[in-house]
Amino acid sequence: MRKNLISYRKLREYMSYMLEHGLGYPQPVAEIAAHVLVEAEARGHPSHGVGRIKKYYEEVTDGKSNPKGKPEIVYETPISIVMRGNRAPGFHVAEFAMENTIAKAKANGTCMTAVRDSCHFGMAGYWAELAADQNMIGVAFTNSLRMAIPTYGRERLLGTNPICVAIPLKNKPHFILDMATTTAAMGKIEVAARRGETLPDGWAVDESGLGTSEASHVIQFIYSKQDPNGGLLFLGGATTELGGHKGYGLGLLVELLTSGLSLGMPTYGTGTDQHGCQICHYFQATRLDLFGDATEIQDHIAEILEYIKNSPKAEKQDRIYIHGEKEFERRAKAIEEGIQLDTAAWAKLDEYADMLGLEHIVP
Amino acid sequence: MRKNLISYRKLREYMSYMLEHGLGYPQPVAEIAAHVLVEAEARGHPSHGVGRIKKYYEEVTDGKSNPKGKPEIVYETPISIVMRGNRAPGFHVAEFAMENTIAKAKANGTCMTAVRDSCHFGMAGYWAELAADQNMIGVAFTNSLRMAIPTYGRERLLGTNPICVAIPLKNKPHFILDMATTTAAMGKIEVAARRGETLPDGWAVDESGLGTSEASHVIQFIYSKQDPNGGLLFLGGATTELGGHKGYGLGLLVELLTSGLSLGMPTYGTGTDQHGCQICHYFQATRLDLFGDATEIQDHIAEILEYIKNSPKAEKQDRIYIHGEKEFERRAKAIEEGIQLDTAAWAKLDEYADMLGLEHIVP
Repeated sequence: MRKNLISYRKLREYMSYMLEHGLGYPQPVAEIAAHVLVEAEARGHPSHGVGRIKKYYEEVTDGKSNPKGKPEIVYETPISIVMRGNRAPGFHVAEFAMENTIAKAKANGTCMTAVRDSCHFGMAGYWAELAADQNMIGVAFTNSLRMAIPTYGRERLLGTNPICVAIPLKNKPHFILDMATTTAAMGKIEVAARRGETLPDGWAVDESGLGTSEASHVIQFIYSKQDPNGGLLFLGGATTELGGHKGYGLGLLVELLTSGLSLGMPTYGTGTDQHGCQICHYFQATRLDLFGDATEIQDHIAEILEYIKNSPKAEKQDRIYIHGEKEFERRAKAIEEGIQLDTAAWAKLDEYADMLGLEHIVP
Repeated sequence: MRKNLISYRKLREYMSYMLEHGLGYPQPVAEIAAHVLVEAEARGHPSHGVGRIKKYYEEVTDGKSNPKGKPEIVYETPISIVMRGNRAPGFHVAEFAMENTIAKAKANGTCMTAVRDSCHFGMAGYWAELAADQNMIGVAFTNSLRMAIPTYGRERLLGTNPICVAIPLKNKPHFILDMATTTAAMGKIEVAARRGETLPDGWAVDESGLGTSEASHVIQFIYSKQDPNGGLLFLGGATTELGGHKGYGLGLLVELLTSGLSLGMPTYGTGTDQHGCQICHYFQATRLDLFGDATEIQDHIAEILEYIKNSPKAEKQDRIYIHGEKEFERRAKAIEEGIQLDTAAWAKLDEYADMLGLEHIVP
């Protein structure tokens, strides 16, 4: 396994090189994209890491993403923005959106931003954290591709539609809840397929509506686009007994705040034409001092989190986690010791390097 | 069953009478509280209906709620409010909060309101819908009493901490997602106990940490306050495999936005002293026209919802629901035909009427 360790800096430089020279991203766009992908690896989420190069490559070669595209603001008020991504890479769109959202929130207290016609922006947590780093509550939602099934439905009409909210603390890690509203993110199914692992019950159903544990089969029918049936289950599963209607409701809420508010393409309309990825996002930044003394609020929140962490553990468990902690700790370790890139991701990078006529990555 | 049918208007008048003359609520407070409770019955959520009179009675007799209490604003900006409930009934606090939140949102586009020191405000959907009725996105979150267990924890430190978001449509029903972040709301466990039903696996664990299906036992140990262990499981269950950490994350997010932002008492600190119910809320109202032409947005959202509703159904299912639809239809029927009050709730009302020296309700 030793040979799969690579330094954070090297991986980031290499990804930037590959995105610029292989996919044609302008240099600053390649840099931000590489940063987001390598942050996902460092934080222990290979599901949103460099192994997804295939996805970003195909966005460009299918004509769905224009690497040189430029997002623009089409409507704004002092506390809101509507943006058109103009098929630019999602990383570029999200960076532009968050910069503007944070600037307005700084000036006016809060800003809510709906974005249409973007592409995949990587890990949502990266974007919400930008606001938290400025002492603001950060929000990043996105719809995605057709993957998930409404409760009592048959077709995959919605995306994994993640919810991310970051609440700033004085000392990192911030509280960062970053979750697909499906039981599992698509990236996790991809990782399982790359590694030849099976899926737990309750993650996905096949085209006939029956539960399936075959990760590679799920990947195949979701990406083949031949059959609209089957896909991922929302948090809570297929029925209402364990709250599947709640996960579906959260996914639908994300859909309405992203493609709904932005007048964008709903998830069920994506992947059917050549007009772009058509991904839609929703961002928000809100100054903590809208609610009084920010320091006092942060102390109070830190105290709540400490109390929960220090409470008695369930049998066989030795730790209660706060959202964002694991990622923070893994990142610190990865920056010090290097990133443990999985074999499949490494092979994927080499495959794309060969295809694109680029140097291989060297540990 | 016929004898358990009662008119919406009669039940509302009776509840208002009981709350005013039995619990000492001022007349306008009794009216709003009765409205919220009877709306829950009409919408098919007896878990938040008139059968909860015991809870509101005990809030007063335990000295946790002051029926004559008056909420006040302690901090505000043009787009935010922090309120102290001053132990007033939660219905009164929530009404005052939403009135002020909506007024600021009308003037300034949005308003976010954190509230401490309140009591139980009934069904969250009622409050978020007030904003939706004014063409605004409405949000109502609340913490509650110690009921739910953090992932890998043992003690019930958090409440069922519901999330409610309402998105306004031109024609009702609005999209209203109103969900406990636990697999089931406590009110549903209470209804199961009143009716002698068992609980599905994955709803609750007992004091030893083992799953339990006995509704009345769960009620007993949660309300006895003797043992801090055991309680409800968050959406996704006890482990991360089916996403229990996501449900826990949502519950914790609600905790931080309610007791955190308001500098209020965290759920784990409630029920231990006589300083009040100490429930905390978070509300938001946001004008839809912050994102452009509200009518155009509403048409687009309605189209998304129609597409999903009309998509193919899973085997043995004949309908895909949108959140808020079921409640809207049940309410229309209940207003026309009467409310079907369950026998246990009816008996509870008669018991409290006797205890408080009031007339019995007459169908």
